[in-house]
Amino acid sequence: MLDSFFTPSSIAVVGAANDPTKLRGKLLKIALGSAHKGPVHPVHPKAGIIQGQEAYASLTDIPGGAELVLIATPGPTVPGVIREAVAAGAKAAVILSSGVDMTELADAIGDSGLRYMGPNCEGYVSLDGAAATFAAVADAALSAGRAAPRPGRKVSIVSQSGGLGFALFGRGLAENLDFHAVVTTGNEGDLESLDFVDHLLDEGKSGVILMFIEGLKLPGRFAEVASKAADKGVPIVIMKVGRSEAGQRAAVSHTAHLTGADTAYDAIFERYGIIRVFDQEQMLSVAAALARFPHVPVNSVGVISTSGGAGAWAADLCGTSGLDVPVLSDGLQKDLSEWIPEFGSTANPVDVTANAVELGGVPLVRVLERVQDSDELDAFIVNIGLHTPGRIANLGEILEPVFRKARKPILFTSHIQPIAENMAALAELGGQGFHSYTGCAAALKGIGRYAAFQADWKKRPAVAPADSPKLEKLKSGVLDEADTSALVKAYAIPVPPTALAIDRNSAARDAAVMGFPVVLKIQSPDISHKTEAGGVKLGVRAGDVEGAFDEIIANAKAYDPAARIEGVLIQKMMPKGHELVIGVIHDADFGPLVMLGSGGIYLEVLKDVVFAPPPISPEEAKRLILSLKTAPILKGVRGQKPADIDALAALVSRVAELARTETGIEQIDFNPVFVYPEGEGVVAVDVLAVAIGPDGKTGGGHH
Amino acid sequence: MLDSFFTPSSIAVVGAANDPTKLRGKLLKIALGSAHKGPVHPVHPKAGIIQGQEAYASLTDIPGGAELVLIATPGPTVPGVIREAVAAGAKAAVILSSGVDMTELADAIGDSGLRYMGPNCEGYVSLDGAAATFAAVADAALSAGRAAPRPGRKVSIVSQSGGLGFALFGRGLAENLDFHAVVTTGNEGDLESLDFVDHLLDEGKSGVILMFIEGLKLPGRFAEVASKAADKGVPIVIMKVGRSEAGQRAAVSHTAHLTGADTAYDAIFERYGIIRVFDQEQMLSVAAALARFPHVPVNSVGVISTSGGAGAWAADLCGTSGLDVPVLSDGLQKDLSEWIPEFGSTANPVDVTANAVELGGVPLVRVLERVQDSDELDAFIVNIGLHTPGRIANLGEILEPVFRKARKPILFTSHIQPIAENMAALAELGGQGFHSYTGCAAALKGIGRYAAFQADWKKRPAVAPADSPKLEKLKSGVLDEADTSALVKAYAIPVPPTALAIDRNSAARDAAVMGFPVVLKIQSPDISHKTEAGGVKLGVRAGDVEGAFDEIIANAKAYDPAARIEGVLIQKMMPKGHELVIGVIHDADFGPLVMLGSGGIYLEVLKDVVFAPPPISPEEAKRLILSLKTAPILKGVRGQKPADIDALAALVSRVAELARTETGIEQIDFNPVFVYPEGEGVVAVDVLAVAIGPDGKTGGGHH
Repeated sequence: MLDSFFTPSSIAVVGAANDPTKLRGKLLKIALGSAHKGPVHPVHPKAGIIQGQEAYASLTDIPGGAELVLIATPGPTVPGVIREAVAAGAKAAVILSSGVDMTELADAIGDSGLRYMGPNCEGYVSLDGAAATFAAVADAALSAGRAAPRPGRKVSIVSQSGGLGFALFGRGLAENLDFHAVVTTGNEGDLESLDFVDHLLDEGKSGVILMFIEGLKLPGRFAEVASKAADKGVPIVIMKVGRSEAGQRAAVSHTAHLTGADTAYDAIFERYGIIRVFDQEQMLSVAAALARFPHVPVNSVGVISTSGGAGAWAADLCGTSGLDVPVLSDGLQKDLSEWIPEFGSTANPVDVTANAVELGGVPLVRVLERVQDSDELDAFIVNIGLHTPGRIANLGEILEPVFRKARKPILFTSHIQPIAENMAALAELGGQGFHSYTGCAAALKGIGRYAAFQADWKKRPAVAPADSPKLEKLKSGVLDEADTSALVKAYAIPVPPTALAIDRNSAARDAAVMGFPVVLKIQSPDISHKTEAGGVKLGVRAGDVEGAFDEIIANAKAYDPAARIEGVLIQKMMPKGHELVIGVIHDADFGPLVMLGSGGIYLEVLKDVVFAPPPISPEEAKRLILSLKTAPILKGVRGQKPADIDALAALVSRVAELARTETGIEQIDFNPVFVYPEGEGVVAVDVLAVAIGPDGKTGGGHH
Repeated sequence: MLDSFFTPSSIAVVGAANDPTKLRGKLLKIALGSAHKGPVHPVHPKAGIIQGQEAYASLTDIPGGAELVLIATPGPTVPGVIREAVAAGAKAAVILSSGVDMTELADAIGDSGLRYMGPNCEGYVSLDGAAATFAAVADAALSAGRAAPRPGRKVSIVSQSGGLGFALFGRGLAENLDFHAVVTTGNEGDLESLDFVDHLLDEGKSGVILMFIEGLKLPGRFAEVASKAADKGVPIVIMKVGRSEAGQRAAVSHTAHLTGADTAYDAIFERYGIIRVFDQEQMLSVAAALARFPHVPVNSVGVISTSGGAGAWAADLCGTSGLDVPVLSDGLQKDLSEWIPEFGSTANPVDVTANAVELGGVPLVRVLERVQDSDELDAFIVNIGLHTPGRIANLGEILEPVFRKARKPILFTSHIQPIAENMAALAELGGQGFHSYTGCAAALKGIGRYAAFQADWKKRPAVAPADSPKLEKLKSGVLDEADTSALVKAYAIPVPPTALAIDRNSAARDAAVMGFPVVLKIQSPDISHKTEAGGVKLGVRAGDVEGAFDEIIANAKAYDPAARIEGVLIQKMMPKGHELVIGVIHDADFGPLVMLGSGGIYLEVLKDVVFAPPPISPEEAKRLILSLKTAPILKGVRGQKPADIDALAALVSRVAELARTETGIEQIDFNPVFVYPEGEGVVAVDVLAVAIGPDGKTGGGHH
């Protein structure tokens, strides 16, 4: 569908100017300079020759028309131009203009089927197709050209912000990344970021996709596109800004206070192996590593340095990032000692000393060859001064086969400010230079994380359609005991034994069956504040049930003589276990999300919560549980028996199924959930559910 | 003392060569090219003329001798050269050579009083004094020269690693920092990093000092030098690598397992307002900000951007760093609207739009002028494309007064790769360009933190000498009940009521006085495993004391008939409070450190611990307490009464006094400490103390 943008048969540039320093002159110049092979027609009222091309007074004057139309004329003129484009049979338009009346625009397009990007975008450049932008960096990149493609995957950028998308492109070129396309989508009146990511995935020419987003136009579609990327093994790296607080305000139950739109993005990103980054250096470091190196698990790192201090420092930064820098085996150290002087170190960090520099770096490459073959290390950080002209070029002959045969990432870096020549030479050889250890660590974490995700993704079971019985349409607002009961029963949520007693004797019988102590609660559709009404008795023991029953009924009648009384709820008081919280919230963008957190006062104080979208397999649930800060407590500390993590995982998985099926449930909190020792199960002691009414609104209010 | 290094009357370069590309040729060239005004004498067996200077065959041949001698000859020759230097009356030597026999070297120096730096160092350069290095970057910097000094403070670097020190210098020059001196100390056979920091502070020409260390030669001296820096308002920024695990292995009590040498450095750094950084970009960003801008508190940040997306992103990164980006007041927004088009934003981030760029950036400067005057904001991040040649130069006239009058930090940055020209132009005007928002956020945090430290430092009371009565020399190993009791009494540590009962009747009487339940414990110098001996009874209630007493005595006699029995300890069982842990450990480098942590299972799981060196005032103790992750629990959550934080702070302060005074105590743990509600105090329920014996060793072993 988007071929009309990237490989059109012909292009028209409306309002094209001769002067390539002017906006629309640049637009024409870049379109002409792109890899697009077909004609590029300038359109200008005065016709004539513009930048060497025959110009037409109108789009409809172009013989054979134009498949793609580029528009950078003032906003108010755009609908008219689009009308002409439709008349001329155009299939696609890039609207770089801002200030466009969207109603008029829709009107102009009508049912023609014309698709557009923008308005208010900076357009795109496909390095082996068309270009529709006036971004100076695109001009420079196309003018510079590139001889042979370098080893590795190509990178594409999809950004809502034109400024940031092309800024990233410029910085990426300086980092010697090889690009396939840069796309900036602006206001997304029609086509949006995900359309272009989808297209790039279908094209199959992008090995890594970088996204810069403020929010998605259709968040619900993200899963589909991200799944496609995961299936194809194309990592997506995202920088997302503009956190929204929407959805927090209308929160009824407790869970919602702990989330925000950004939490939902994080949960979805996690599910699809998206690597989220927070600045440009981090993005480019991760992108370079994913583009240049194999996607392998990375746990242990070998640090090879010509400076002892710099090596120690790299080891520190690896450690901070959770990467291991293990001492090498005696055998391997013995082998390395051939190239390392006495005053160096073979341990790891490997200190080849400044000696290696005096020998042009050769011993360093020999060490690299040897450690690469070992299975003691997953990846390498190599520090050598890259400020000396010719440093890499002189090593090219022996470095090239090392990079060519590499089955593991080899990241070069330099504590002394590197010069561009050496960084470029590394890329030409199939390696990559990084500006900092921080960048190296981010890159290795990114590769390792993506490899782990891919291994897991391939094993992930296909998601069956939700097959649980969907409950009847629920009354809006906080669910009553009967509806809540039906809900937890339908999803096999373990709750304390509960019975509704209609007289004092059955109350005592029910309590005796479930065991003491018990809780008694008035059950009336007319009494929502049970405690205030004197309708709750806690810790009732054998022999006291009848009296408590009578008292509660009397209290309720005194509180509201007109109240319909259905009976008294008898519930077993459960012994304490590890206290957790499970909840479901509805994110305005992504729909239901399951929350799991440490319970009690630590929920608020430590914010020890994780979120994930349904469905959640028991295996995924277990991973979620183990990612809690307080997971070590569940695993058993100080000789305590481990908690029943399997039972908890099964519960989380079932709650996720509830979240997926019961679309009428706006929020549900299981708080607390008691988790007992291994084999002894879990119980959701208290449940608060809120339904969306037939009017699509919740009733609100806590009970 | 170190004037002989930086402003010597004369310098001699031993083994100086003519060829400035050779090591010792470069050494001479750089010494000659430095700001040193006196003679620089080449010394070479062949004498003659070297690099235009008259050379001498020996140091002793130089008429009038040489105050400073630079030595880069092979290691084995160094002691001989030093002997000559001593004979020639030299006062200082820089030993760049490695492989020097340290005993011979000490021998050669004898009692001459000659001081040296190195061996195995890369020397130093003082930009207004002497230079003693062959580092290429020093050569380049001196050759380039610099016209007028730019506004702001000068930066000095003191690094143990020559490679990293001069690499940082090179990167700092590229960032337009103005330097006073770069010093690299190598193996620190004589002078060490702190000597040079001390000298730089005395000189008074360094406004910011950057240190790169792997560990300190004399850590105990750090406090003195750091205090001097704090008194003078000179911030010290430190990158420390090479974490050691020493001190962890011999740990007896629990506290020690949570620390390491690096923890001690962090605690000391925190005390003296040292800013610790983890990579070069962070170091240079913080250094640039501290050098260029006033040291003011920074909480709220104004973001001014020509791109909406980039502005939102800056706001996100500020938020992540704990910096506020508040919405501006209506009045201020109204004022700003004069320079901002409708489609921009006056809220904050302030979006001046690309419009401002088309007007050369003028509206952006006007906005900057206006917001600067407001007290709504503490600092500013300004994002404008710095890739366009002439961008800053063209704004110079209106920007210069803004920077000159600035009482708040104004950080320029650019989402598009900036060019050097604009970054340099900013520095010339008294501003500073940063490469990333991450760098900006680190810089603002650094300034804010230093300002807060300085405000606090000025208020800090002078530390009185420890005046508590020091206890008698303690027996080595784990302290017995009597010694422990004496210790806690001397420092007024609140412990549960305790009495030693020698018969069953006095046991019952004692218990009745303190209140039930109580704990009974056998007291015998010969029984260290009390529980195993059946010598402990918990939760003993009224009426059961006599029986429990008899049983314990009988058990003890059965367990070890020869054991000397002193009686039975009666201790009140305290009601539960908030559970914390206070401890003292001895760091091998820095001496005693006080640890404060959350108690119970959370101590291990959350590692919620903080460390600080004594003395600790009650105010500092309160800050420590409030820096715990679980501090909100102490402050009261879910309507709970706040805990007695004042009593806890007083206890921490007294424990610190104990740590400072009782140098014979190797470790002490108060675990748990119960903290009761406000006004109800604290109690250290259990105490474990380990003393260093007269032999300087601890007995070891847990009881």
